[in-house]
Amino acid sequence: MKLRRGLGFPLRNFDVMPRDSRPIGVFDSGIGGLSVLKHLMQTMPHERFVYLGDTARVPYGNRSTETVKSYARQCSAFLLQHDVKLIVVACNTVSAVALDELRKELSVPVIGVIEPAAREAASSTSSRHIGVIGTRATINSEAYTHAIIQHGDLHVHSRACPLLVPLVEEGWLDTAATRAIIEEYLRPLIAQQIDTLVLGCTHYPLLTPVLTDMYPDVRLVDCGQWTAAEAALIVGDHADEQPSIPMVDIYVTDATPTFNLVASRFLGMPVNEPVVVTIDSLPTSVERIS
Amino acid sequence: MKLRRGLGFPLRNFDVMPRDSRPIGVFDSGIGGLSVLKHLMQTMPHERFVYLGDTARVPYGNRSTETVKSYARQCSAFLLQHDVKLIVVACNTVSAVALDELRKELSVPVIGVIEPAAREAASSTSSRHIGVIGTRATINSEAYTHAIIQHGDLHVHSRACPLLVPLVEEGWLDTAATRAIIEEYLRPLIAQQIDTLVLGCTHYPLLTPVLTDMYPDVRLVDCGQWTAAEAALIVGDHADEQPSIPMVDIYVTDATPTFNLVASRFLGMPVNEPVVVTIDSLPTSVERIS
Repeated sequence: MKLRRGLGFPLRNFDVMPRDSRPIGVFDSGIGGLSVLKHLMQTMPHERFVYLGDTARVPYGNRSTETVKSYARQCSAFLLQHDVKLIVVACNTVSAVALDELRKELSVPVIGVIEPAAREAASSTSSRHIGVIGTRATINSEAYTHAIIQHGDLHVHSRACPLLVPLVEEGWLDTAATRAIIEEYLRPLIAQQIDTLVLGCTHYPLLTPVLTDMYPDVRLVDCGQWTAAEAALIVGDHADEQPSIPMVDIYVTDATPTFNLVASRFLGMPVNEPVVVTIDSLPTSVERIS
Repeated sequence: MKLRRGLGFPLRNFDVMPRDSRPIGVFDSGIGGLSVLKHLMQTMPHERFVYLGDTARVPYGNRSTETVKSYARQCSAFLLQHDVKLIVVACNTVSAVALDELRKELSVPVIGVIEPAAREAASSTSSRHIGVIGTRATINSEAYTHAIIQHGDLHVHSRACPLLVPLVEEGWLDTAATRAIIEEYLRPLIAQQIDTLVLGCTHYPLLTPVLTDMYPDVRLVDCGQWTAAEAALIVGDHADEQPSIPMVDIYVTDATPTFNLVASRFLGMPVNEPVVVTIDSLPTSVERIS
């Protein structure tokens, strides 16, 4: 079994096998992961995707670690039932607290959003001061800090920004309140001379225009973009194939009235009515590596 | 069976019976209901209380009606196991969508937070223009509008304010961002000449100081205060008894790291570590009226 340097798990024979037609599984606690799915679809237009948003139990950010792990296991088991070849954990909270365990338990490769973003931030900073913003759970886990400092003598300044998720879901992407909130959160990070800011939450990429306008000298790292690049490495290079319109099946654990509106904002395209799969019907056990 | 005017359900013999030593049950989707519990404890210092915060499934505001009803049924069943004599639904979302059903199904009186606040707002307005703010689910249900216009020829101007809950939980009770957010939400209501504003969410009373400062001519209606007054009517007048320190047992469905800090802010006093009762162990069926 060979290890591709930096990916953190064995690739087995995926990169020498012929094109594997099975879909790629993606899950998140809700709709934020659609901003990751958007990059996955852009990067791999020939692939099929199955997305599960656990909207009945969102947000995971305030749950205990044990609860998050058990939810992540159920979401993964659901995706495995759809015969996925790779699972992308498009959720920072799950990536922070449950990734190692999922990798041990699941029979397919699993990637999260934190390592790819950390690697990109480390390679792009000049000041060696990197800012990280995310939900309280993500920041408290210090997962980004640990992942970034593995890449050298770097200083990480992080801050939990719980108001930014509801701000994005409200659609206030650039109002007076938006700027007041961002200013309040980022003031101490800017004071530390950061030149790179990791958007450590899948909702935050929608604030890219206002952030760029407010802090033109700070480079923004969108975890979805770099996670998609890593996923493409794993499923192999099929650039010679005709790109098609990627097919995606979207499942949610609870129907919410504003899903289509908010989801289309995240995905950057119109979204069909999702299929509702109740929590009770989610499988509870996952395959183990044989 | 006699009906006390305006309460909307039969009182049976509760008001002529000797003091009933059973506790009063209170539930909410999370911690917001503690602002209602605070008023209940102040109004009835001789009573015992059992509080359940469904922190594992908060917030209810984005769930479907069927899901909210099923959660409310489970919370009520848990309280009935503690032999409560009255259930106070200290949650606007549940009060808006599930109150009638709970009243039909449960063997004890059930009161919500909407009717008492609506009655108070209707009796206190001079301009006949009343503002209502709440979560998206509460406002979309139009429960406050329907409840208020039953009391006369009144104009209700309502607005969903999804950012205010995370704002309060963040503890930003009076910052530049707080004022920018409130200004953005309330501008259209103020333009309608409201003289009364119903705080239709149990988190909002913590914003009373900043709201009073920004809009000194608008009377604020805190649903907790008027719900407590109604609860006191139901359990009977025991003002002749020596007031004691009220006893309260607090249960939550998930332990959250910041519970004690946020809860003490809501309750206005220090809070002991709550007892965690997992969702799986909640009862699923409720007693029916025999």
